[in-house]
Amino acid sequence: MQAEYDSHNIFARILRGELPCFKVYEDADTIAFLDIMPQSDGHTLVVPKEPAVDLFGLSGQAAAAAIRATQIVARGVRETFGPDGVVISQFNGAAAGQTVPHVHFHIVPRYADQALRGHAREQQSMEVLRAHAERLAATLAKQGA
Amino acid sequence: MQAEYDSHNIFARILRGELPCFKVYEDADTIAFLDIMPQSDGHTLVVPKEPAVDLFGLSGQAAAAAIRATQIVARGVRETFGPDGVVISQFNGAAAGQTVPHVHFHIVPRYADQALRGHAREQQSMEVLRAHAERLAATLAKQGA
Repeated sequence: MQAEYDSHNIFARILRGELPCFKVYEDADTIAFLDIMPQSDGHTLVVPKEPAVDLFGLSGQAAAAAIRATQIVARGVRETFGPDGVVISQFNGAAAGQTVPHVHFHIVPRYADQALRGHAREQQSMEVLRAHAERLAATLAKQGA
Repeated sequence: MQAEYDSHNIFARILRGELPCFKVYEDADTIAFLDIMPQSDGHTLVVPKEPAVDLFGLSGQAAAAAIRATQIVARGVRETFGPDGVVISQFNGAAAGQTVPHVHFHIVPRYADQALRGHAREQQSMEVLRAHAERLAATLAKQGA
Protein backbone atom coordinates (compact mmCIF):
# COMPACT_ATOMS: atom_id res chain seq x y z
CA MET A 1 0.00 0.00 0.00
CA GLN A 2 1.24 3.45 -0.94
CA ALA A 3 2.07 6.01 1.69
CA GLU A 4 3.77 9.00 0.03
CA TYR A 5 1.34 11.65 -1.16
CA ASP A 6 1.56 12.78 -4.80
CA SER A 7 0.28 16.36 -4.93
CA HIS A 8 -0.29 16.04 -8.69
CA ASN A 9 -2.99 13.39 -8.38
CA ILE A 10 -6.28 14.26 -10.05
CA PHE A 11 -8.20 14.90 -6.81
CA ALA A 12 -5.46 17.21 -5.51
CA ARG A 13 -5.80 19.15 -8.76
CA ILE A 14 -9.59 19.29 -8.40
CA LEU A 15 -9.19 20.51 -4.80
CA ARG A 16 -6.84 23.27 -6.00
CA GLY A 17 -9.35 24.27 -8.69
CA GLU A 18 -6.97 23.27 -11.50
CA LEU A 19 -9.45 20.76 -12.90
CA PRO A 20 -13.24 20.95 -13.04
CA CYS A 21 -15.65 18.61 -11.32
CA PHE A 22 -19.40 18.14 -10.93
CA LYS A 23 -19.43 19.44 -7.38
CA VAL A 24 -22.51 18.76 -5.27
CA TYR A 25 -21.32 19.64 -1.75
CA GLU A 26 -18.50 21.38 0.09
CA ASP A 27 -17.70 22.19 3.70
CA ALA A 28 -14.54 23.28 5.53
CA ASP A 29 -13.00 19.80 5.46
CA THR A 30 -14.57 18.02 2.53
CA ILE A 31 -15.73 18.29 -1.06
CA ALA A 32 -18.14 15.96 -2.87
CA PHE A 33 -18.58 15.54 -6.61
CA LEU A 34 -19.93 13.00 -9.06
CA ASP A 35 -17.77 10.09 -10.20
CA ILE A 36 -17.41 10.62 -13.95
CA MET A 37 -17.25 6.84 -14.43
CA PRO A 38 -20.26 6.02 -12.27
CA GLN A 39 -21.05 2.45 -11.30
CA SER A 40 -24.70 3.54 -11.08
CA ASP A 41 -26.66 6.76 -11.49
CA GLY A 42 -25.84 9.12 -8.61
CA HIS A 43 -22.43 7.60 -7.79
CA THR A 44 -20.75 10.35 -5.78
CA LEU A 45 -17.29 10.76 -4.24
CA VAL A 46 -16.58 12.41 -0.88
CA VAL A 47 -13.02 13.73 -0.74
CA PRO A 48 -11.30 15.07 2.39
CA LYS A 49 -9.35 18.25 1.73
CA GLU A 50 -6.51 16.99 3.93
CA PRO A 51 -3.80 15.51 1.71
CA ALA A 52 -3.60 11.79 2.46
CA VAL A 53 -3.16 8.77 0.21
CA ASP A 54 -5.53 6.55 2.15
CA LEU A 55 -7.49 6.07 5.36
CA PHE A 56 -4.29 5.06 7.15
CA GLY A 57 -2.73 8.44 6.48
CA LEU A 58 -5.80 10.53 7.27
CA SER A 59 -6.15 12.29 10.65
CA GLY A 60 -8.96 11.11 12.89
CA GLN A 61 -10.53 14.56 12.68
CA ALA A 62 -10.54 14.54 8.89
CA ALA A 63 -11.94 11.00 8.85
CA ALA A 64 -14.75 12.07 11.19
CA ALA A 65 -15.54 15.08 8.98
CA ALA A 66 -15.52 12.85 5.90
CA ILE A 67 -17.98 10.31 7.27
CA ARG A 68 -20.30 13.09 8.45
CA ALA A 69 -20.17 14.65 4.98
CA THR A 70 -20.78 11.17 3.53
CA GLN A 71 -23.93 10.85 5.63
CA ILE A 72 -25.17 14.25 4.47
CA VAL A 73 -24.48 13.63 0.80
CA ALA A 74 -25.83 10.05 0.95
CA ARG A 75 -29.12 11.40 2.33
CA GLY A 76 -29.25 13.73 -0.66
CA VAL A 77 -28.42 10.88 -3.05
CA ARG A 78 -31.19 8.77 -1.54
CA GLU A 79 -33.77 11.51 -1.89
CA THR A 80 -32.66 12.52 -5.39
CA PHE A 81 -32.26 9.14 -7.08
CA GLY A 82 -34.52 6.91 -4.96
CA PRO A 83 -32.23 3.84 -4.92
CA ASP A 84 -33.17 0.58 -3.18
CA GLY A 85 -29.91 0.59 -1.26
CA VAL A 86 -26.68 2.56 -0.87
CA VAL A 87 -23.15 1.18 -0.64
CA ILE A 88 -20.43 3.25 1.02
CA SER A 89 -16.95 2.06 0.11
CA GLN A 90 -13.42 3.29 0.56
CA PHE A 91 -10.49 1.56 -1.14
CA ASN A 92 -6.95 1.56 0.22
CA GLY A 93 -4.26 0.40 -2.18
CA ALA A 94 -4.37 -0.69 -5.80
CA ALA A 95 -5.00 -4.27 -4.68
CA ALA A 96 -8.20 -2.98 -3.03
CA GLY A 97 -9.33 -1.17 -6.19
CA GLN A 98 -8.01 2.32 -5.38
CA THR A 99 -7.38 4.21 -8.63
CA VAL A 100 -6.67 7.76 -7.38
CA PRO A 101 -4.05 8.10 -4.62
CA HIS A 102 -6.01 10.62 -2.52
CA VAL A 103 -8.33 9.13 0.12
CA HIS A 104 -12.01 9.17 -0.87
CA PHE A 105 -15.33 7.59 -0.01
CA HIS A 106 -17.68 6.25 -2.68
CA ILE A 107 -21.44 6.63 -2.33
CA VAL A 108 -22.88 4.06 -4.75
CA PRO A 109 -26.67 3.84 -5.11
CA ARG A 110 -27.96 0.33 -5.74
CA TYR A 111 -31.08 -0.27 -7.80
CA ALA A 112 -32.73 -3.66 -7.34
CA ASP A 113 -33.16 -4.26 -11.07
CA GLN A 114 -29.68 -3.12 -12.18
CA ALA A 115 -26.22 -4.66 -11.90
CA LEU A 116 -23.39 -2.28 -11.06
CA ARG A 117 -21.23 -1.08 -13.88
CA GLY A 118 -17.49 -1.75 -13.47
CA HIS A 119 -15.41 0.50 -11.21
CA ALA A 120 -13.52 3.23 -13.11
CA ARG A 121 -14.42 1.71 -16.48
CA GLU A 122 -16.75 3.76 -18.65
CA GLN A 123 -17.19 7.53 -18.70
CA GLN A 124 -20.72 8.89 -18.47
CA SER A 125 -21.76 11.70 -20.83
CA MET A 126 -21.13 15.23 -19.56
CA GLU A 127 -24.80 16.13 -20.14
CA VAL A 128 -26.06 13.32 -17.91
CA LEU A 129 -23.48 14.09 -15.22
CA ARG A 130 -24.34 17.78 -15.27
CA ALA A 131 -28.07 17.05 -14.95
CA HIS A 132 -27.48 14.59 -12.08
CA ALA A 133 -25.19 17.03 -10.28
CA GLU A 134 -27.75 19.81 -10.56
CA ARG A 135 -30.52 17.62 -9.17
CA LEU A 136 -28.37 16.38 -6.29
CA ALA A 137 -27.01 19.83 -5.43
CA ALA A 138 -30.58 21.18 -5.42
CA THR A 139 -31.71 18.41 -3.03
CA LEU A 140 -28.78 19.08 -0.72
CA ALA A 141 -29.52 22.82 -0.74
CA LYS A 142 -33.15 22.06 0.10
CA GLN A 143 -32.04 19.77 2.93
CA GLY A 144 -29.93 22.60 4.31
CA ALA A 145 -26.71 20.64 3.82
CA MET B 1 -34.42 0.72 2.74
CA GLN B 2 -35.37 -0.28 6.25
CA ALA B 3 -35.69 2.31 8.96
CA GLU B 4 -37.24 0.71 12.07
CA TYR B 5 -34.69 -0.83 14.40
CA ASP B 6 -35.18 -4.47 15.43
CA SER B 7 -33.56 -4.88 18.85
CA HIS B 8 -33.42 -8.66 18.37
CA ASN B 9 -30.97 -8.51 15.44
CA ILE B 10 -27.80 -10.52 15.93
CA PHE B 11 -25.51 -7.51 16.47
CA ALA B 12 -27.86 -6.05 19.09
CA ARG B 13 -27.66 -9.39 20.88
CA ILE B 14 -23.86 -9.41 20.64
CA LEU B 15 -23.77 -5.84 22.00
CA ARG B 16 -25.93 -6.92 24.96
CA GLY B 17 -23.64 -9.91 25.61
CA GLU B 18 -26.38 -12.40 24.76
CA LEU B 19 -24.30 -13.94 21.97
CA PRO B 20 -20.56 -14.47 21.76
CA CYS B 21 -18.22 -12.88 19.24
CA PHE B 22 -14.53 -12.85 18.38
CA LYS B 23 -14.00 -9.37 19.81
CA VAL B 24 -10.79 -7.55 18.89
CA TYR B 25 -11.53 -3.98 20.01
CA GLU B 26 -13.97 -1.95 22.09
CA ASP B 27 -14.31 1.68 23.09
CA ALA B 28 -17.14 3.77 24.56
CA ASP B 29 -19.01 4.00 21.26
CA THR B 30 -17.94 1.01 19.22
CA ILE B 31 -17.14 -2.69 19.27
CA ALA B 32 -15.16 -4.61 16.64
CA PHE B 33 -15.15 -8.36 16.03
CA LEU B 34 -14.30 -10.81 13.28
CA ASP B 35 -16.85 -11.59 10.58
CA ILE B 36 -17.54 -15.31 11.02
CA MET B 37 -18.12 -15.63 7.28
CA PRO B 38 -15.00 -13.74 6.21
CA GLN B 39 -14.47 -12.69 2.61
CA SER B 40 -10.73 -12.88 3.32
CA ASP B 41 -8.51 -13.63 6.32
CA GLY B 42 -8.80 -10.79 8.84
CA HIS B 43 -12.24 -9.57 7.71
CA THR B 44 -13.43 -7.52 10.69
CA LEU B 45 -16.65 -5.67 11.51
CA VAL B 46 -16.84 -2.33 13.33
CA VAL B 47 -20.22 -1.90 15.00
CA PRO B 48 -21.47 1.33 16.63
CA LYS B 49 -23.16 0.72 19.97
CA GLU B 50 -25.87 3.23 19.09
CA PRO B 51 -28.94 1.36 17.81
CA ALA B 52 -29.43 2.30 14.16
CA VAL B 53 -30.38 0.24 11.12
CA ASP B 54 -28.07 2.01 8.73
CA LEU B 55 -25.84 5.04 8.17
CA PHE B 56 -28.91 7.18 7.55
CA GLY B 57 -30.22 6.51 11.05
CA LEU B 58 -26.87 6.90 12.84
CA SER B 59 -26.01 10.14 14.67
CA GLY B 60 -23.11 12.17 13.28
CA GLN B 61 -21.26 11.66 16.55
CA ALA B 62 -21.61 7.87 16.39
CA ALA B 63 -20.58 7.86 12.73
CA ALA B 64 -17.46 9.85 13.59
CA ALA B 65 -16.61 7.46 16.41
CA ALA B 66 -17.17 4.49 14.10
CA ILE B 67 -14.83 5.72 11.37
CA ARG B 68 -12.14 6.55 13.94
CA ALA B 69 -12.48 3.03 15.38
CA THR B 70 -12.37 1.69 11.81
CA GLN B 71 -9.06 3.49 11.25
CA ILE B 72 -7.62 2.07 14.46
CA VAL B 73 -8.74 -1.49 13.79
CA ALA B 74 -7.73 -1.32 10.11
CA ARG B 75 -4.21 -0.34 11.16
CA GLY B 76 -4.16 -3.43 13.35
CA VAL B 77 -5.50 -5.59 10.53
CA ARG B 78 -2.81 -4.24 8.20
CA GLU B 79 -0.02 -4.99 10.65
CA THR B 80 -1.38 -8.41 11.64
CA PHE B 81 -2.28 -9.88 8.27
CA GLY B 82 -0.04 -7.90 5.88
CA PRO B 83 -2.60 -7.52 3.07
CA ASP B 84 -1.82 -5.73 -0.21
CA GLY B 85 -4.86 -3.50 0.21
CA VAL B 86 -7.82 -2.89 2.50
CA VAL B 87 -11.43 -2.25 1.50
CA ILE B 88 -13.75 -0.43 3.89
CA SER B 89 -17.42 -0.94 3.04
CA GLN B 90 -20.73 -0.20 4.63
CA PHE B 91 -23.98 -1.52 3.15
CA ASN B 92 -27.34 0.19 3.56
CA GLY B 93 -30.38 -1.89 2.62
CA ALA B 94 -30.73 -5.46 1.39
CA ALA B 95 -30.33 -4.24 -2.21
CA ALA B 96 -26.88 -2.98 -1.18
CA GLY B 97 -25.89 -6.29 0.41
CA GLN B 98 -26.78 -5.51 4.03
CA THR B 99 -27.57 -8.76 5.86
CA VAL B 100 -27.79 -7.61 9.51
CA PRO B 101 -30.07 -4.62 10.21
CA HIS B 102 -27.65 -2.84 12.57
CA VAL B 103 -25.25 -0.38 10.95
CA HIS B 104 -21.70 -1.73 10.59
CA PHE B 105 -18.47 -1.12 8.70
CA HIS B 106 -16.56 -3.95 7.02
CA ILE B 107 -12.76 -4.00 7.03
CA VAL B 108 -11.83 -6.43 4.25
CA PRO B 109 -8.13 -7.16 3.62
CA ARG B 110 -7.25 -7.76 -0.02
CA TYR B 111 -4.44 -10.09 -0.99
CA ALA B 112 -3.10 -9.65 -4.52
CA ASP B 113 -3.12 -13.37 -5.26
CA GLN B 114 -6.58 -14.18 -3.82
CA ALA B 115 -10.12 -13.49 -5.00
CA LEU B 116 -12.60 -12.47 -2.32
CA ARG B 117 -14.92 -15.14 -1.00
CA GLY B 118 -18.65 -14.33 -1.24
CA HIS B 119 -20.25 -11.97 1.30
CA ALA B 120 -22.06 -13.79 4.13
CA ARG B 121 -21.65 -17.15 2.41
CA GLU B 122 -19.38 -19.63 4.13
CA GLN B 123 -18.56 -19.88 7.82
CA GLN B 124 -14.90 -20.06 8.82
CA SER B 125 -13.85 -22.63 11.43
CA MET B 126 -13.98 -21.46 15.03
CA GLU B 127 -10.33 -22.45 15.53
CA VAL B 128 -9.13 -20.23 12.69
CA LEU B 129 -11.33 -17.32 13.79
CA ARG B 130 -10.12 -17.61 17.37
CA ALA B 131 -6.48 -17.66 16.28
CA HIS B 132 -6.99 -14.63 14.00
CA ALA B 133 -8.84 -12.72 16.71
CA GLU B 134 -6.07 -13.37 19.22
CA ARG B 135 -3.39 -12.18 16.79
CA LEU B 136 -5.34 -9.03 15.88
CA ALA B 137 -6.26 -8.20 19.48
CA ALA B 138 -2.59 -8.60 20.45
CA THR B 139 -1.51 -6.21 17.68
CA LEU B 140 -4.10 -3.65 18.73
CA ALA B 141 -3.01 -3.92 22.35
CA LYS B 142 0.60 -3.42 21.26
CA GLN B 143 -0.44 -0.38 19.20
CA GLY B 144 -2.10 1.05 22.30
CA ALA B 145 -5.52 1.01 20.66
